[in-house]
Amino acid sequence: MNSHIRVNADKVRNLICSIFERLAVPPSDAAIAADVLVQADLRGVDSHGINNLSQYIEPLRLGELNPKPTVTKITETSTTALLDGDGGMGLVVGAKAMELCITKAQLSGVGIATVRRSRHFGMAAYHAMMCLPYNMIGVALTNNSSPAIVPTYGNEPMLATNPISVAAPTRNEIPFVLDMATSVVAFSKIGAALTKGEKIPDGWVVDDAGNPINDALEAWNGRRILPLGSTPDGSSHKGYGLAVLVDILTGVLSGGCYGNMATRLPHADPKIRESSSHFFLALRVDVFRPIEEFKDAMDDMLSALRNSAKAPGCNRIYTHGEKEFETLKNRIKYGIPYHAAFVDQLHALSKEYNVPF
Amino acid sequence: MNSHIRVNADKVRNLICSIFERLAVPPSDAAIAADVLVQADLRGVDSHGINNLSQYIEPLRLGELNPKPTVTKITETSTTALLDGDGGMGLVVGAKAMELCITKAQLSGVGIATVRRSRHFGMAAYHAMMCLPYNMIGVALTNNSSPAIVPTYGNEPMLATNPISVAAPTRNEIPFVLDMATSVVAFSKIGAALTKGEKIPDGWVVDDAGNPINDALEAWNGRRILPLGSTPDGSSHKGYGLAVLVDILTGVLSGGCYGNMATRLPHADPKIRESSSHFFLALRVDVFRPIEEFKDAMDDMLSALRNSAKAPGCNRIYTHGEKEFETLKNRIKYGIPYHAAFVDQLHALSKEYNVPF
Repeated sequence: MNSHIRVNADKVRNLICSIFERLAVPPSDAAIAADVLVQADLRGVDSHGINNLSQYIEPLRLGELNPKPTVTKITETSTTALLDGDGGMGLVVGAKAMELCITKAQLSGVGIATVRRSRHFGMAAYHAMMCLPYNMIGVALTNNSSPAIVPTYGNEPMLATNPISVAAPTRNEIPFVLDMATSVVAFSKIGAALTKGEKIPDGWVVDDAGNPINDALEAWNGRRILPLGSTPDGSSHKGYGLAVLVDILTGVLSGGCYGNMATRLPHADPKIRESSSHFFLALRVDVFRPIEEFKDAMDDMLSALRNSAKAPGCNRIYTHGEKEFETLKNRIKYGIPYHAAFVDQLHALSKEYNVPF
Repeated sequence: MNSHIRVNADKVRNLICSIFERLAVPPSDAAIAADVLVQADLRGVDSHGINNLSQYIEPLRLGELNPKPTVTKITETSTTALLDGDGGMGLVVGAKAMELCITKAQLSGVGIATVRRSRHFGMAAYHAMMCLPYNMIGVALTNNSSPAIVPTYGNEPMLATNPISVAAPTRNEIPFVLDMATSVVAFSKIGAALTKGEKIPDGWVVDDAGNPINDALEAWNGRRILPLGSTPDGSSHKGYGLAVLVDILTGVLSGGCYGNMATRLPHADPKIRESSSHFFLALRVDVFRPIEEFKDAMDDMLSALRNSAKAPGCNRIYTHGEKEFETLKNRIKYGIPYHAAFVDQLHALSKEYNVPF
């Protein structure tokens, strides 16, 4: 039942890259897209890895996703840019937008891009982490056209799960990598429960009477996920506010899709309505203070957190990105564990597209 | 018992300003400091208003707070600055830092400042909202030297309640103003419960065995506040991560105080150890898209949220800043309601400092 097969990451990456190429994606873009997905699997963020492959393959086959987008700069300054993703894969459009931010930050200290008419950009942390080798702090935000979060006191899915990812470099500690949905859970965790046939706990999703839903299928269909903090602490307005903030910086600032536009404005331009919007920021540390000083202070703070007193019954405190880094090390060495049935699917894809696996 | 007296905001502002001047604060700085405190009271953020006056007056009297700080630029580019607050009031240092960001954003699209060796900067939203008249998005973050948040799986206060404030302009809707602690509650709410002799609910503060504390005094002294999301939803790592993020952008990036440095490093420079660090960002909207288009989209999104279906038993959905704006309108018209005993204290201060009230 739990039979997993460990597969070498390079093999998977090559397979996915070749499939994208067969679907008319230019080789360099296909390589980026494959890398974003495989990095998610390597880091244990399985919800954003290649088990979502059909989410990209099918729209590419159906012509709903542009395999060769022309990413254009609508407006630009030395520090900022508004980009149009031309309906391409967010995996690629996002990485290119962050690349532009890094180039701007190298020259001007900071680079900020907001992007409209893109699609799902994969694991947000991938884009934020692009800044780490450049000794920059990276921020990546995204929304999408599938509202899921119910506002505080509301009953209607109005905002996507709008994740926030921020990465900051360290010296010996594992880099700080925050990647969080602004809902109590990412939508994909409901999908994971659905796949595994598991119930979901109280406090994640409600029905139209505001009562908790525990059935994963009902939760998936109802799409009423509570905002972060929706619990006895009564601070759901914080998660709700962070979700709105992400929508402002992505969809509103870019002139793209935001909120429940997709369902509320059926006559809006479908190229906007059915898209994702993103926001990226790259900030060079050494315009503020020497990078080595910064890294020492990062190490000092993160190790103090890890070494602080544990709660009763707990024997470890994590910093953000630590678990994923350990998974990465393990999976690079031993391969990525996939269900045997999923590996069969990969073999089938290899045959179907006539590409090696 | 609940006898309140409504006092005109200008009267209070003049009183506070005059007291600060008597304590050797330059008139223009005194005016800023008074305005930050009175704006909090006007907006109903009473926890950050003039009932904290002694928190500023006493250190000024004792020479622990520098009344005439020289705010210096340690490093600077056209878009960024690292500032040293010279141990001055954060109320003033913060406002000056954001002013600098706004000037930079006017010229370069974006302005970012990180500040070390400052002190409590009052209501974070004050600084973020400074961007609104300039049609900019404003971000204000701060930490302080009093750790309160316990990391996920931890038992020791390691991070201050590290608030995040973001403001974005609108056309007819009330501007979006998010201002949230990254803990389940702001520390001041425990103080408010203490003052009123009330219990605090489960899920806010824990004892060293991890059990909920309901006694406000015990909570105040124990300082073990849970991070945002610390409830059955199991997403406390999100609040914990946001608190670390704020510490990175404020204390670590500036070379200032962060984490539990104040208690952990007793031999560190007290000018750093006992200080606050801040982070400010001003972002011009019109470098991305025309401001009128942006404002229309903001209005569309916020009104859609307010007008979306209500949860059973709820008859109103708020956007962030809406409640505070309504309080502001009321208090500008009718005055700020203070407890009669507090008004007596203000009269006593007026006599003590020989300034009009």
